[in-house]
Amino acid sequence: MLDTIKALAKKTDSKILMVVLDGVGGLPLELGGDTELATAVTPNLDALAKNAQLGQVELVGAGITPGSGPGHLSLFGYDPLKFVVGRGALSAVGIGVKLGAGDVAVRGNFATLGAGRVVEDRRAGRPSDEKNAEIVGQLRAAIPEIGGVKVEIYTESEHRFVVVFRNPGAGLGANISDVDPQATGVQPLTAQAHDDASRQTADLVNTFVTRAEEALKDEPQVNGVLFRGYSDVPHFPSMDDIYGLKAACIASYPMYKGLASLVGMDVLDVEGHEDALDGKVAALQANWDKYDFFYFHVKKTDSTGEDGDFHEKVHKIEIFDALLPQLLALKPDVIAIVGDHSTPSKLASHSWHPVPLLIHSEYARKDVAARYTEEEAQKGTLGLRRGTDVMPLLMANALKLQKYGA
Amino acid sequence: MLDTIKALAKKTDSKILMVVLDGVGGLPLELGGDTELATAVTPNLDALAKNAQLGQVELVGAGITPGSGPGHLSLFGYDPLKFVVGRGALSAVGIGVKLGAGDVAVRGNFATLGAGRVVEDRRAGRPSDEKNAEIVGQLRAAIPEIGGVKVEIYTESEHRFVVVFRNPGAGLGANISDVDPQATGVQPLTAQAHDDASRQTADLVNTFVTRAEEALKDEPQVNGVLFRGYSDVPHFPSMDDIYGLKAACIASYPMYKGLASLVGMDVLDVEGHEDALDGKVAALQANWDKYDFFYFHVKKTDSTGEDGDFHEKVHKIEIFDALLPQLLALKPDVIAIVGDHSTPSKLASHSWHPVPLLIHSEYARKDVAARYTEEEAQKGTLGLRRGTDVMPLLMANALKLQKYGA
Repeated sequence: MLDTIKALAKKTDSKILMVVLDGVGGLPLELGGDTELATAVTPNLDALAKNAQLGQVELVGAGITPGSGPGHLSLFGYDPLKFVVGRGALSAVGIGVKLGAGDVAVRGNFATLGAGRVVEDRRAGRPSDEKNAEIVGQLRAAIPEIGGVKVEIYTESEHRFVVVFRNPGAGLGANISDVDPQATGVQPLTAQAHDDASRQTADLVNTFVTRAEEALKDEPQVNGVLFRGYSDVPHFPSMDDIYGLKAACIASYPMYKGLASLVGMDVLDVEGHEDALDGKVAALQANWDKYDFFYFHVKKTDSTGEDGDFHEKVHKIEIFDALLPQLLALKPDVIAIVGDHSTPSKLASHSWHPVPLLIHSEYARKDVAARYTEEEAQKGTLGLRRGTDVMPLLMANALKLQKYGA
Repeated sequence: MLDTIKALAKKTDSKILMVVLDGVGGLPLELGGDTELATAVTPNLDALAKNAQLGQVELVGAGITPGSGPGHLSLFGYDPLKFVVGRGALSAVGIGVKLGAGDVAVRGNFATLGAGRVVEDRRAGRPSDEKNAEIVGQLRAAIPEIGGVKVEIYTESEHRFVVVFRNPGAGLGANISDVDPQATGVQPLTAQAHDDASRQTADLVNTFVTRAEEALKDEPQVNGVLFRGYSDVPHFPSMDDIYGLKAACIASYPMYKGLASLVGMDVLDVEGHEDALDGKVAALQANWDKYDFFYFHVKKTDSTGEDGDFHEKVHKIEIFDALLPQLLALKPDVIAIVGDHSTPSKLASHSWHPVPLLIHSEYARKDVAARYTEEEAQKGTLGLRRGTDVMPLLMANALKLQKYGA
């Protein structure tokens, strides 16, 4: 289907604004009650919904609870069962590291090694993030490169860190075995390459292990490294390739910026802390003329759901509602309001429930759905769909898709 | 998708009860009228529907009328276009014969042979089931085994019978040509193996034909056998493999027990005759603690539809409704009410119309659908779906699926 969309996509001056209210779908606390969206007072969303098209989307499939990665990829039109981001790459992306073709990202754990290099604690006593950063600083100084390959080391959290190997000459393979023995009382394993393209990577990993242990030999607890989960960089076609869109990401948190960069979006600078909604609006306004697709991410609708805080989630929805007129003032040709998954406060976690989708453009049929809520969305003209349908619908509503066949 | 579900499935203490009202979907007798479900007085189903999620399912695809096999496989999560039960195996399963890996099941027709072994009647004058059983008894006595391979012979109905070859040493292939010439006035064909693994099976079949004709040589009409449709046993992953479910089947009729055993369910004993609803409830109660998934089959909703008896189908639905409180008293975490296909009395046969689906769990959004009927189900939050979506939805509602991706 992506090939078909690519063949039909055409460039126009119209602009698409995709607002992702992270985890916005919810549940009533008691059966038969109102969800967070239905409880929220949202005059601006309501007004938009009156003349918009509504529907529901399942991001991955029936009953499947999407992680943020698969949920967003689906919204960007990439089937998340086909476009899989490996754990190493996702960790790197999650802390905002940009990956390029031929790079390899590796998930590492700090460990405690005893006499004879025997693993005593696979998590090095769960060091603080500060301790982690201090150790990462030592390793960066000790291992800036190995044999001409650039080595980048990043703190993830506690005992977790990420290494990115970048070979300016040729690409690196990622098909190698783990260093982590997944047991204590034994030595770390030696990484083995499973194919020719990964031989150099195995050597890099083993050399890294040796040099890291040398650098950390005076540390009492954090004195070893274990690796598990190697990823080369997923080769996703860019949104420019597929849709012919010059696309920009407006997000505050590293994970979402990383996902957007994987599909070739420009990641715009956003001023402010945490969700920084004002900063995001300012970034949108400042860059409005430079792009024809904007991904605008709102995080707190998810965080409050994850916290199990129904009332706060309602409040964050209302805060977004108050900001909506500023987005509409830019007069996007197409605006979509959607989520990357549901995060009902009742479950305090992501869930499998579909998310409501709203698409506003000049080319809508009458729709009896009167609000952007789960219940109203069920009545909408867009029906119940896969998340990968969203981008083709936005492209169509922006008149950016040619006719298929004569 | 099954691989994805399998990777995400986790074991929990929650219990799922799937009630299959066979052929429950119907049609109004006159356009614009009420269906059997809408006509039935169903206070218990109505009460359940009030706080449940409703939708419609197509078991195989748009416009496709499912047989019982594909309809049930779809409900169990097996795409019926990919998981095909061969005709021989389905016949064996349909009469309740358990098949194991390496067994071969063959469909046979009794025929009338004239002088020179020429086929005079490919159906042997359509003998009665009693005559069929008598002939089968003669053949069982005459051919208990061939060269160490166990031969089992079963009556199906009229001129139809089933042979199962079980080779205790090695598996048997089923890739051989027909004995049935599909014409009269010619001799039966000699079975030919199409691959090495099926050579022994071809010999078995040809020897069976010779010995059967010898055994039946004094029969005036039922004196020959024709074979068509050989199946080795479909290797379906079990529901335990895929979902991690300890699954039990509560059904009375052989076909449904056979289908359940193909997907690895334990088939529980049910006391009583025909549909034996009281026996089924007793079996459910007695085994409630031993399983985490129950398939509970109700047959008469289909039989009455097949009979074209609208009034009786309504009555059978009401009988199930009266029994429903005993099922709910067990407090399943998730209960689904669904059909394996529609059997409208108006058509007196299976039909392609979607069947209403009801899912009750603690994790439901408000649903305007107020009854378990075809018309109300159209308004439900679950939308119109494939049958293979049902199991992932039940697993999700039972909180038995982990998140996909991070």
